[in-house]
Amino acid sequence: MTKKVLIRLPRKTYVEDLDREITLGEFEKHVITKTNRSFSDKKHTIRPEILEKEPHRFERKKDEYLLLNADFLDEYKQLRRSAQIITLKDIGRIITLLGITKDAVVVEAGAGSGAATCYLAKLAKEVHTYELEEEQLNMTKENLKELNINNVHLYQADIYEKAKEHDADAFLLDVPDPRKALPQAIKALRVGGRCAIYTPNLTQAQDVINNLPETLLYEGTTELTERNWHIKGRVLRPRIQGLGHTAFLTLLRKVPGGEP
Amino acid sequence: MTKKVLIRLPRKTYVEDLDREITLGEFEKHVITKTNRSFSDKKHTIRPEILEKEPHRFERKKDEYLLLNADFLDEYKQLRRSAQIITLKDIGRIITLLGITKDAVVVEAGAGSGAATCYLAKLAKEVHTYELEEEQLNMTKENLKELNINNVHLYQADIYEKAKEHDADAFLLDVPDPRKALPQAIKALRVGGRCAIYTPNLTQAQDVINNLPETLLYEGTTELTERNWHIKGRVLRPRIQGLGHTAFLTLLRKVPGGEP
Amino acid sequence: MTKKVLIRLPRKTYVEDLDREITLGEFEKHVITKTNRSFSDKKHTIRPEILEKEPHRFERKKDEYLLLNADFLDEYKQLRRSAQIITLKDIGRIITLLGITKDAVVVEAGAGSGAATCYLAKLAKEVHTYELEEEQLNMTKENLKELNINNVHLYQADIYEKAKEHDADAFLLDVPDPRKALPQAIKALRVGGRCAIYTPNLTQAQDVINNLPETLLYEGTTELTERNWHIKGRVLRPRIQGLGHTAFLTLLRKVPGGEP
Amino acid sequence: MTKKVLIRLPRKTYVEDLDREITLGEFEKHVITKTNRSFSDKKHTIRPEILEKEPHRFERKKDEYLLLNADFLDEYKQLRRSAQIITLKDIGRIITLLGITKDAVVVEAGAGSGAATCYLAKLAKEVHTYELEEEQLNMTKENLKELNINNVHLYQADIYEKAKEHDADAFLLDVPDPRKALPQAIKALRVGGRCAIYTPNLTQAQDVINNLPETLLYEGTTELTERNWHIKGRVLRPRIQGLGHTAFLTLLRKVPGGEP
Repeated sequence: MTKKVLIRLPRKTYVEDLDREITLGEFEKHVITKTNRSFSDKKHTIRPEILEKEPHRFERKKDEYLLLNADFLDEYKQLRRSAQIITLKDIGRIITLLGITKDAVVVEAGAGSGAATCYLAKLAKEVHTYELEEEQLNMTKENLKELNINNVHLYQADIYEKAKEHDADAFLLDVPDPRKALPQAIKALRVGGRCAIYTPNLTQAQDVINNLPETLLYEGTTELTERNWHIKGRVLRPRIQGLGHTAFLTLLRKVPGGEP
Repeated sequence: MTKKVLIRLPRKTYVEDLDREITLGEFEKHVITKTNRSFSDKKHTIRPEILEKEPHRFERKKDEYLLLNADFLDEYKQLRRSAQIITLKDIGRIITLLGITKDAVVVEAGAGSGAATCYLAKLAKEVHTYELEEEQLNMTKENLKELNINNVHLYQADIYEKAKEHDADAFLLDVPDPRKALPQAIKALRVGGRCAIYTPNLTQAQDVINNLPETLLYEGTTELTERNWHIKGRVLRPRIQGLGHTAFLTLLRKVPGGEP
Repeated sequence: MTKKVLIRLPRKTYVEDLDREITLGEFEKHVITKTNRSFSDKKHTIRPEILEKEPHRFERKKDEYLLLNADFLDEYKQLRRSAQIITLKDIGRIITLLGITKDAVVVEAGAGSGAATCYLAKLAKEVHTYELEEEQLNMTKENLKELNINNVHLYQADIYEKAKEHDADAFLLDVPDPRKALPQAIKALRVGGRCAIYTPNLTQAQDVINNLPETLLYEGTTELTERNWHIKGRVLRPRIQGLGHTAFLTLLRKVPGGEP
Repeated sequence: MTKKVLIRLPRKTYVEDLDREITLGEFEKHVITKTNRSFSDKKHTIRPEILEKEPHRFERKKDEYLLLNADFLDEYKQLRRSAQIITLKDIGRIITLLGITKDAVVVEAGAGSGAATCYLAKLAKEVHTYELEEEQLNMTKENLKELNINNVHLYQADIYEKAKEHDADAFLLDVPDPRKALPQAIKALRVGGRCAIYTPNLTQAQDVINNLPETLLYEGTTELTERNWHIKGRVLRPRIQGLGHTAFLTLLRKVPGGEP
């Protein structure tokens, strides 16, 4: 059963002063998982025979609707998630910091709810994910299943203690004490492979950088701020609600020789 | 001939006051294309028999060197480029805005020097690139060849006038007057496909948003700021040199019906 | 009757694992206007004989309190305000953009709720404030009275139409259509005087800049972003809640000659 | 002798395609200290009889000039300065963080080149400045003299060791190890007075916050980013050259009782 995206467009109103129609507000979007049941948004109920059709545009009284087939990104945004996930802006930057391509072998620890796992798996050749917590691991499994992803290997293991040799191109490290995981990151990576460390606090990055084994080269620490703009007619300003802070990204590279 | 990365590490100096060694300055990195010739940095000359070896660590007097095999990201950073290219932070965000995966068909206009083209090709299934300028097209060709990329189709054509139907999942539009290219973007995309518009000026985004055909849904405009940090010992501050501004990213989605 | 500031400190708790006391949460602050009445926060009731004392520190069961005399900044933060006021970060920048000193004659339009008016009056020699709306004007009057400020001249007038010659050093323009107020700003300023225009939208700044009379020289447009940090023990990160966007500041200077 | 500001306006050129005049480039500004001598910019030489006139507008061949009387802000920007000074954006924020008014007694340590000292003195009732380095102290003296400021008291003393009781409303602390200066800041401030600490590194702020005497209440740490915009015709984008990072501002308040 193909999932669908249902969009109710904002209403258009004729404004006499301007002598033209303007739209008020923004569109409302829902991802519909079960298209064989009726779906109700705040205004109307849409029946299965409409939801199961191919993409089309239709009206309900004064409201206009769009129906689309859901694709990866639509489904991704619907994933079950725990409190804090890596945002899409940071996933994007992680991809280009690590140089991930479709040939890449990627290792990740921990899984969290598996959101980053899913995105990386849709890009890379294979993903190896370490996670100690059973609950997180199960949520990751569910999310992978939901998206039909099968190039992820899950390991219930403590990344501070034990990783395999994966000859990996890239390692994404998102754990509370990244410094403790460095020996395992070294083990998992190929020489020349890169490790991106995601840390909400700068002290965590400091710990890593000021205590780095010779086998890891420090390439830099970066921080991304994303700002959404409100653009419509003569309105042209940043939106008030900001994403606020997410995290700092520290990039290391495994180099030959040196003390690990 | 495998390209190599040669890194000269910063020197360590014993500081009596601190009773420990500290490193002064930062490492220096070179990508070596022709390893069958000697290479000289500011301090030493390294001979081919060293450069052609497998990754290793070696010394020249008081300086320590690392030799790595160059990978995609190393080579990418060495590409020939014209004045202004899309930065890696923006490429990352474009990937996750457009929901690009390894199954994606991506269309791009214009090519510029082909840097974004190369990155997208290493991720997506296939890339179709439109570029009118011969010089830009040639630079793109050279860069694709340099990186052994062969899933890119180049079209010397005016994107304001003429694109093919590609049933594409994603469209990256980086042209001076994006509004004029919208009809062709509609033609190239599948229903539900996304178009990211890269514009240095907000007026260009305004033009698009305030004159949008019904077939394209406006999903938002965003702006990324990247900041590098200087972290070492007790130093913990943003680096003074900023990347400054790059561009605004506007996201559209092709929807069913409506006037194109 | 001196106003007071009452602060309840966060509690300290002994944590056995750390073998030391840590504070939980943040302090809570109230400005007390009527110290001859009891005041209750969420935890305790504080009686007048405590509130009327000189600054001191006292305890109520496990909670520690501080009592201070309220000063200008404490009272300023308590002012009655309408929806949107100029923030302290922007007031600070306006002061240094305009070069305001204690000898300065400052003109302002419109008053809003009079918050900026109050701050400018506590710094400058005199302030002339134009405001058309009766309600805003009354709120400004109340706020000036509350803070005992008497170097502000209020004018109920339309700044698009009518300002006096004030030979002013500085003009703060915070109105919906600043372009329409430029002739009056020219009239109010001395030659060499500066005008700062506060606009939420860039289009408002564009209008001014692209239609500037020769008598006004454009010195630049700037935007300030403020970020608060969370620093405590090993926590070291930007706070999640951002101030978001406030406004753009455009600086003009009145110059001799030219068409007004 | 009144100092003057000489501004050469950018040239206007008729563009046939647009059928209108456009200006190319930006204006060039000079502060003229000695108006009894000829002054040459890159294009013309302006003679004393022109420079000593009242503000006016004049032409030299195809170039248009403006002559203004220099005011405080013009002269301020010409002050002699050592490597690093507190920027105007930060001075503005310091003013509103500390709640400085024209009645305020302000203490400052160290002086640096005296730039902040000069600005604070033009706003506050009196300023007390501590500086240990003779060279810095002399530069501060010169700058104060240049601007005819005489409400600043200079003390050649080590702020880590020795400050007077000033019953000050505000204290600006800009020294390498602010934590060591806290006992003296406590001594200098009135109860309820505020101390702003200016630190390039977050570690310096951390030191203060994690080791605060009870007599000082931590009110927060903030960071300002300023961005200049390029606005002209259809150009509407942030300027590429950023100010980059300046410093973090930490606000403390002296409270009654507690261990100092």
